[in-house]
Amino acid sequence: MSKINTGNFFEDFTIGQKIAHPLPRTISDGDVSLYIAFTGSRFALHSSDVLAQEFGYDKKPLDDLLMFHLTFGKSVQDISLNAIANLGYAEVSFPNPVFVGDTVNLVTEVIGLKENSNGKSGVVYVRSIGYNQDGLEILSLIRWVMIHKRNKGEMSGINDVPSFAKTTPIASEISIPVAKNVDTTSTGGEYFWEDYEVGERLNHIEGITIDNSDHTLATKLYQNNAKVHFNDHMMKSTPMGERLMYGGHVISIARSISFNGLQNAQWIYAINSGAHSNPTYAGDTIYAYSEVVEKIEVENRDDIALLRLRTIGLKNITPTEVSSPKGEDGKYLPNVVLDLDYTVVIPKKK
Amino acid sequence: MSKINTGNFFEDFTIGQKIAHPLPRTISDGDVSLYIAFTGSRFALHSSDVLAQEFGYDKKPLDDLLMFHLTFGKSVQDISLNAIANLGYAEVSFPNPVFVGDTVNLVTEVIGLKENSNGKSGVVYVRSIGYNQDGLEILSLIRWVMIHKRNKGEMSGINDVPSFAKTTPIASEISIPVAKNVDTTSTGGEYFWEDYEVGERLNHIEGITIDNSDHTLATKLYQNNAKVHFNDHMMKSTPMGERLMYGGHVISIARSISFNGLQNAQWIYAINSGAHSNPTYAGDTIYAYSEVVEKIEVENRDDIALLRLRTIGLKNITPTEVSSPKGEDGKYLPNVVLDLDYTVVIPKKK
Amino acid sequence: MSKINTGNFFEDFTIGQKIAHPLPRTISDGDVSLYIAFTGSRFALHSSDVLAQEFGYDKKPLDDLLMFHLTFGKSVQDISLNAIANLGYAEVSFPNPVFVGDTVNLVTEVIGLKENSNGKSGVVYVRSIGYNQDGLEILSLIRWVMIHKRNKGEMSGINDVPSFAKTTPIASEISIPVAKNVDTTSTGGEYFWEDYEVGERLNHIEGITIDNSDHTLATKLYQNNAKVHFNDHMMKSTPMGERLMYGGHVISIARSISFNGLQNAQWIYAINSGAHSNPTYAGDTIYAYSEVVEKIEVENRDDIALLRLRTIGLKNITPTEVSSPKGEDGKYLPNVVLDLDYTVVIPKKK
Repeated sequence: MSKINTGNFFEDFTIGQKIAHPLPRTISDGDVSLYIAFTGSRFALHSSDVLAQEFGYDKKPLDDLLMFHLTFGKSVQDISLNAIANLGYAEVSFPNPVFVGDTVNLVTEVIGLKENSNGKSGVVYVRSIGYNQDGLEILSLIRWVMIHKRNKGEMSGINDVPSFAKTTPIASEISIPVAKNVDTTSTGGEYFWEDYEVGERLNHIEGITIDNSDHTLATKLYQNNAKVHFNDHMMKSTPMGERLMYGGHVISIARSISFNGLQNAQWIYAINSGAHSNPTYAGDTIYAYSEVVEKIEVENRDDIALLRLRTIGLKNITPTEVSSPKGEDGKYLPNVVLDLDYTVVIPKKK
Repeated sequence: MSKINTGNFFEDFTIGQKIAHPLPRTISDGDVSLYIAFTGSRFALHSSDVLAQEFGYDKKPLDDLLMFHLTFGKSVQDISLNAIANLGYAEVSFPNPVFVGDTVNLVTEVIGLKENSNGKSGVVYVRSIGYNQDGLEILSLIRWVMIHKRNKGEMSGINDVPSFAKTTPIASEISIPVAKNVDTTSTGGEYFWEDYEVGERLNHIEGITIDNSDHTLATKLYQNNAKVHFNDHMMKSTPMGERLMYGGHVISIARSISFNGLQNAQWIYAINSGAHSNPTYAGDTIYAYSEVVEKIEVENRDDIALLRLRTIGLKNITPTEVSSPKGEDGKYLPNVVLDLDYTVVIPKKK
Repeated sequence: MSKINTGNFFEDFTIGQKIAHPLPRTISDGDVSLYIAFTGSRFALHSSDVLAQEFGYDKKPLDDLLMFHLTFGKSVQDISLNAIANLGYAEVSFPNPVFVGDTVNLVTEVIGLKENSNGKSGVVYVRSIGYNQDGLEILSLIRWVMIHKRNKGEMSGINDVPSFAKTTPIASEISIPVAKNVDTTSTGGEYFWEDYEVGERLNHIEGITIDNSDHTLATKLYQNNAKVHFNDHMMKSTPMGERLMYGGHVISIARSISFNGLQNAQWIYAINSGAHSNPTYAGDTIYAYSEVVEKIEVENRDDIALLRLRTIGLKNITPTEVSSPKGEDGKYLPNVVLDLDYTVVIPKKK
């Protein structure tokens, strides 16, 4: 039998199955610098120890998305190496901060299986939980992926779809220190929770062009080995014709662009759902706009509150040219690459 | 009113105005490694703790240009986001060393304003000072940029041009430890201050080709968000037609190339003036040559002295093919991308 | 006389000559992160302090190849700047582990010289030894390069070819801690020394496409200044027509790809020989397959043993399409870019 791990097929998964993913990763300052280089991210909490201390931390915590990528990457080999498509995310949360020096790992449980009627594939639903070296939860997420069957045509009839929340539930305690003071001169933004209104739209003005080296360096840093991102030789014989950008990189670029208008929203509390509505390739320029979907107060905290946002990522078209991400037919416009429903933490006025 | 910061226009500046720029930045080992990867820099003081200790430091200080980029980048959002052109630099100095772990920030004062006669723009002169977390000055510079007016045509008649020194003044004390010994085997260069002659020309032999990922990764690492460097979609509709390289990256590449011939000149004392005489784009190969303009002794120091240099950066042409950066008409030749007048510190013979 | 170091020519070398190369380098977390970004390497020992501690280390040791590149790069300026070709390697070994914070340097001795009959060039054989800041040997290698003569046509008749071992000798003690336990869940691989058979072939399934920014960033990080890797302007007038990838980068990519099938072989004990059989350029997709050449027990150690491997690096062709790296004429096939004979350490079953 071959020693080569060719990944799991639909039949290899059973409900309740637990997979401890390999490759614990100690996070370093190098990872943090690279993330800034990849995205141009300017959220000050994640690039200044001095500011982090003003926010009540001992040192700067990791950007939530960097932690997500480094932790999530571990699941590709076991879960999605034979994926046809990443269909969705739900209930993504970031229960505890991660710091340079921490070692993260990931455990996944299969929570649902649904065979497709074509007999060729099925959908696998999993819940993955990331831990740091002390066993503290640092990431929790549900995702579902369409995966090839090993034996095409043999039907098992399995159809066990789990239910999950439309938005990530808000915990009764939020593991963010009470900030004494928000130095808006340092964060670069003067707006607090009270300043935002439901329905408000922010057309972020920056656009960032992504090249092949950028996105492949990022995805390799995350030890995410999904072939579609790295192997141009293989992709040339697919309808895509070239390497597909890791969707998480598009999320990070859109988040970085959203800084201008959301400077004080330095924490992602949750990702409620996300769709990579069209592929992104090298050479594409990413733009983004954000809408305030909901304003949420937090129990027992008068220093911070939540904004539920919808950030739309665009390619090669500016936000002012797009009124809605979907056309009259209900389908995403071809230049819309991301539809992200997420919740951020932002300080309240004192 | 929109929460999007669209940057300042000419009318937004007043003489004496002070701007504390956001985004304090804690410098890490990751930044240092990335800088070596971007530039191939080999100045040994900045890549070896052992050598730095021989030079009297506790550990390796940051390359002056890396510190410049990380600190300077903060001013783009407030000063030059609506710049038509960066016209010049003067009196740039590096008063104190910066180390990994330090947190840098930047404060700017407007020192001059001059409306252009076309009524569409004006020139803003600023002095920016960078500080570390202890409030120690680590960077000082004057620059002037041409900036769009918000209300084109309304003339204010302001014409207040500051005066500044042709070369950065030399401080009475230079914050460089007294080196016990210069290990030329480690630095890779056998030449000391006494070995250089005014008028001497060094044709550096290396050439470095720059690609889009390199220069955009660098500029994003510096959190410099000037759109011209990142947004290919926008640039395609300009006469440039593509992303313009950050001029500071060209300076760093030229400095790295100048290692061969100036190995012991491991500190930049000052930048007296600099011109980005032609744009640099991805795919260009940078070459450089240097001329010794002046030899300057330092008060109370017999271990080090100064060389004022002029380094000419070239694209796609070797130094031996260029006798002078300007043609008979007094204009820069099309392949000259940088004319940098700066002062370096170099050890004297014992 | 010019201060520009133009590198050594064949006549500049004498047998017994010792060269202490400049540029001691303190290795940082940034270097480690960049190496993962360049290669996508997933060997867990080198990315997790927690796992490294289970293996008996205080913290994660550097990947042997990263240490090789950072140390080896120092010899280019003195040895191979005027090289026509890197002809071979032998007796490469990694006597002691290197950690972040260590400062490495390199010393070379000329051990052989052979003038070519064409009078234009000669072969220089050297042994290079790398040391850490405590003077401990961390790298030992022999290599030979063909180098231009300064004075073409003047024959000296020198022909002094050293002898060296076909495979790197195995030391009586191996500086790897005794591992209490191998956590195969963390390493991602379930196979131990006993599971491999001589003659067994592993067709690694991943392919990685390399772009210009990737390989030039890597080679600049290593402070390897061989012009062929960086200078597209110069290379356009050569038969290659573009920048040639540093062969060491190809070795690293092949090693990274070999993870799938060799997950527990986390140490390279030796490189016995290596051939860069065809050039690699940006845009090429690297694949690899490995053959088990020999199984070697280690004296006094029942926890680890050695596998001698032959890894063949391919470009733009999958391993299943290649039965042998050489054609019937005994020459390498045009898509074979690497033929690496090396020895890895792998745990034995408890």
